[in-house]
Amino acid sequence: MKLGAIEAGGTKFVLAVGNDQGEILEKEVIPTEHPDITVPKVISFFKDKGIERLGLGGFGPIDINETSKTYGQLQKTPKTDWVDYPLGAALKEGLGVPVKIDTDVNVAAMSEAKWGGNATDVDTCLYITVGTGIGAGAYFHGQTLKGLSHSEMGHIKVRRHPDDTYEGTCPYHGDCLEGIAAGPSLEKRWGGKKGHELAEDDQVWEMEAFYLAQALTSYIYILSPERIIMGGGVMKQKQLFPLIRRKVLEMLNGYVSSPYLTEQEIDNYIVFPGLTDEAGVKGALYLAMKE
Amino acid sequence: MKLGAIEAGGTKFVLAVGNDQGEILEKEVIPTEHPDITVPKVISFFKDKGIERLGLGGFGPIDINETSKTYGQLQKTPKTDWVDYPLGAALKEGLGVPVKIDTDVNVAAMSEAKWGGNATDVDTCLYITVGTGIGAGAYFHGQTLKGLSHSEMGHIKVRRHPDDTYEGTCPYHGDCLEGIAAGPSLEKRWGGKKGHELAEDDQVWEMEAFYLAQALTSYIYILSPERIIMGGGVMKQKQLFPLIRRKVLEMLNGYVSSPYLTEQEIDNYIVFPGLTDEAGVKGALYLAMKE
Repeated sequence: MKLGAIEAGGTKFVLAVGNDQGEILEKEVIPTEHPDITVPKVISFFKDKGIERLGLGGFGPIDINETSKTYGQLQKTPKTDWVDYPLGAALKEGLGVPVKIDTDVNVAAMSEAKWGGNATDVDTCLYITVGTGIGAGAYFHGQTLKGLSHSEMGHIKVRRHPDDTYEGTCPYHGDCLEGIAAGPSLEKRWGGKKGHELAEDDQVWEMEAFYLAQALTSYIYILSPERIIMGGGVMKQKQLFPLIRRKVLEMLNGYVSSPYLTEQEIDNYIVFPGLTDEAGVKGALYLAMKE
Repeated sequence: MKLGAIEAGGTKFVLAVGNDQGEILEKEVIPTEHPDITVPKVISFFKDKGIERLGLGGFGPIDINETSKTYGQLQKTPKTDWVDYPLGAALKEGLGVPVKIDTDVNVAAMSEAKWGGNATDVDTCLYITVGTGIGAGAYFHGQTLKGLSHSEMGHIKVRRHPDDTYEGTCPYHGDCLEGIAAGPSLEKRWGGKKGHELAEDDQVWEMEAFYLAQALTSYIYILSPERIIMGGGVMKQKQLFPLIRRKVLEMLNGYVSSPYLTEQEIDNYIVFPGLTDEAGVKGALYLAMKE
């Protein structure tokens, strides 16, 4: 069975044709422009490929409630051209196949659990991306996490580092986690330098790890995932991983009983993505298969 | 079909025989003493009642992973007599019926969703108890929330109120949410007075609502439940509800699109329990039915 998969991001759409074994047969990347330009290109790509179903992991906020009248519709995204755009309905109408929609991070979590990523041996995992924003998705016992809406885990508040006076960049919450720990805030706090230019500055990564470890600790208390996968541009600074792992153990202070939450095993608990750049599109492929 | 149900709390065990319609046919309450005293009493109560299955919603930490060798075993609970006690196995052996175990708050959430509580119209809900401790459970799309372990939502950190200098009571984390907002910390901070003696003091409840609203806001960003039910001794101070609701809306600042998260509908989103004192034991009854 041929399936279509889309990773719909804020800057690019990754389009792929694959099969129900998780193999990508054909792939194309197009820029994210106005929906009147981008969506016809998407339809044209898939039109004659013989796909039977389509899955999409998208930027948000987006309606991922399958019983909703506005399923697949973008919401109050900062990408103003896309606000209220009925992406799911437009693709379904243009291609005449069932379309499944979820968030980019939810499908990435699913992908890491299902298609040879770093969570294939567990039933529950969390996928966090730390880049231009901070987002996280979860795959728990065969389902992605959704309820009233989808998760917006990057917008929790964490306690401020005593040496940090940066006011935060989030237009909604100022100094929420995303406002103080995503890529753009790192850059602004540290004199306009990019992450790779700051690689040698320990203070930068100690503070970043302090914020991310607090968030992970809250995610562990609330969700209790069996694995945490951290991806995105900021996490390419690999020196962050040992710092975060150590601080998470310090903050938990032995409270949660699990062999994973120990010095011996924490390296196998907080990990980088197994699928690197294909987690999104492969997750969308898996989503396409779901009834 | 006759079913057994136990709400196993730190001070008392509620034992009930019920049926698969959610009706409680017989009930008894016994104190929580040493397991060598309490467990024989439990077995004696159920022994000749003809129950086919048993469900238990228990205090924790407790192993709720059904595939684990130590399923139903208590962990590092402050009730030292019970540390490592194999409660599930002892009941199964004593009664010769299948035994299902989950946390008290997870089964309370399930109960509110299934047996005529305040979440029967939604697929996802969160149940929080604010009493001698703070705990929360969730029921999402037919499953209670579990992964590496069960949730320990009361132990997240929230930002401190600017007027609060109280150091916190949690032996593991000092000023985590439970350490600054559960009943005992309220009492210690405000000169040893109980909640009902402080009922008229606005400052007390403004601070309490500040902490609980921060926690709820994090739970909403992370889990996105369709309803939040708040019970427990501290929540009997009903003046807390409007304070918490208002602060949650202020903190979200319009970020999550949902008709529930509005001034018009927030009263139907953050609610008190529908089953009052029976949520736990009725949840255990529902759990008993699950394959």
